[in-house]
Amino acid sequence: MSLLERIETCRRWNRSRYRPFQVAGQKVGWVTHDFARRLKDFPKAFRVSDVAVEMAPGLGDFAQRSAAMAEVLAGLSADGTVSGWRNEPYPVGTDFYAPPLLQMERAAVPLFGVRAYGVHINGFTGDGAALELWVAKRSKTKQTAPGKLDHLVAGGQPLGLSLMDNVVKECGEEAGMMPALARTARPAGFVSYVTERVEGLRNDICFVYDVALPADFRPVNEDGEIEEFYLWRIDQVRTRLSETDDFKFNVALVNIDFLVRRGYLSPDEPGYVAIVEGLRL
Amino acid sequence: MSLLERIETCRRWNRSRYRPFQVAGQKVGWVTHDFARRLKDFPKAFRVSDVAVEMAPGLGDFAQRSAAMAEVLAGLSADGTVSGWRNEPYPVGTDFYAPPLLQMERAAVPLFGVRAYGVHINGFTGDGAALELWVAKRSKTKQTAPGKLDHLVAGGQPLGLSLMDNVVKECGEEAGMMPALARTARPAGFVSYVTERVEGLRNDICFVYDVALPADFRPVNEDGEIEEFYLWRIDQVRTRLSETDDFKFNVALVNIDFLVRRGYLSPDEPGYVAIVEGLRL
Repeated sequence: MSLLERIETCRRWNRSRYRPFQVAGQKVGWVTHDFARRLKDFPKAFRVSDVAVEMAPGLGDFAQRSAAMAEVLAGLSADGTVSGWRNEPYPVGTDFYAPPLLQMERAAVPLFGVRAYGVHINGFTGDGAALELWVAKRSKTKQTAPGKLDHLVAGGQPLGLSLMDNVVKECGEEAGMMPALARTARPAGFVSYVTERVEGLRNDICFVYDVALPADFRPVNEDGEIEEFYLWRIDQVRTRLSETDDFKFNVALVNIDFLVRRGYLSPDEPGYVAIVEGLRL
Repeated sequence: MSLLERIETCRRWNRSRYRPFQVAGQKVGWVTHDFARRLKDFPKAFRVSDVAVEMAPGLGDFAQRSAAMAEVLAGLSADGTVSGWRNEPYPVGTDFYAPPLLQMERAAVPLFGVRAYGVHINGFTGDGAALELWVAKRSKTKQTAPGKLDHLVAGGQPLGLSLMDNVVKECGEEAGMMPALARTARPAGFVSYVTERVEGLRNDICFVYDVALPADFRPVNEDGEIEEFYLWRIDQVRTRLSETDDFKFNVALVNIDFLVRRGYLSPDEPGYVAIVEGLRL
């Protein structure tokens, strides 16, 4: 089953190229040996050893660590090491539900290999073989994965917003969905992976939501990030997933999870166990 | 969230008490050091070293290995080491979809810690907050987990039957369901675990199916293994799962997976990530 190729794309990680990134005695990410050497330029912020990079222990709380990181990232942005600044502070920590240890500009997250969180919303109409899934085509000007196929709605999880409030916000911005409809989205678990991409190490949990949409729903993109929307029958989605890598890497994973959860793949089919095992770390 | 306690019950394994069980150069299970010493009594079947138990390499194919294992198990059954003989041959191997390396009586599977497979069927009516789930109470005379709460239908996966055919067979035997209705069951992934139980090491994949039942469906148990059936609202199921260990250990896991997949748990609630991560190995 070539769906397995989509899974493998989300599990490409040569761990020997990395050393842990630690904050307050806890491992929160992974940095390449090359990037670790670069971080020696910032001794006020980092203690770099051969086996790890630590934030300087003198930085004792969220505010101090966040300020030190911001100063470093400003430097790394000036010389182009960090590119595509988004002005979106992401929390950094070991537990999604605990107060974060620091915050960090989103664009730098893959360089430090810290875990990031996002919400991915499967919008569909109908049921069974007649189910149709909304598919979005990303703008060719997007920084990551330009022109790739995407969910109806997906977005990173910023600091200080509940997941459900983020779902409602993103559904408005990315698909023009009214809040009352967006709030009918139902959570359905998550997929997770660690994989090397051009932007760095992606170490993500994508929280998955399903929203059943009325047949006359038509998405309207409000933020210019989507070029076009399609409504595809589920077998068409499956074929496209199997035969091409047209879907963005993590969108493919969430779509395969949708196929699994809703019974569009059979456990009697060879490969099923490996596919399901590949959906989460 | 005390659902986490149900998850932890499925992940109790002190690996230092075990050594690998190997067949044809592949690790297919785990045996306790005590049991490994007992297996020295059967040198024609096993090569026992301090670090592993291997089936004798001279046993070159499925038939020879299965015959040697059957002879050993007859001996171990005579002295009570293997109890509760079921006359159900289980496949032993490393890949669910590849031809098995041998077969083994089901009652001995946990002693060798080999992976076993089963089908678990969630039978429900309605949707949303009004969804009701069928719950079965196991007979007090069952060998494993007497009197515990169970699925509408669940059963081990024997040799030589597709998963879907097993679903239909078990739905008939355990709930009196007609094949046409049973075939509407839709696969939805699996849960997996390795955990120590009184019967030995349970190293299982439970394939999960959901079947939407008509409101007037009434299960009838044909094989005497179920004492009573209940139709419970989903919030009642959740409370019982959270506050008691009345559900059989792996049934609790499958039920929590149902709560996750169908949006009855919120990822905004602390504990959610650990719960979802605990559903599969």
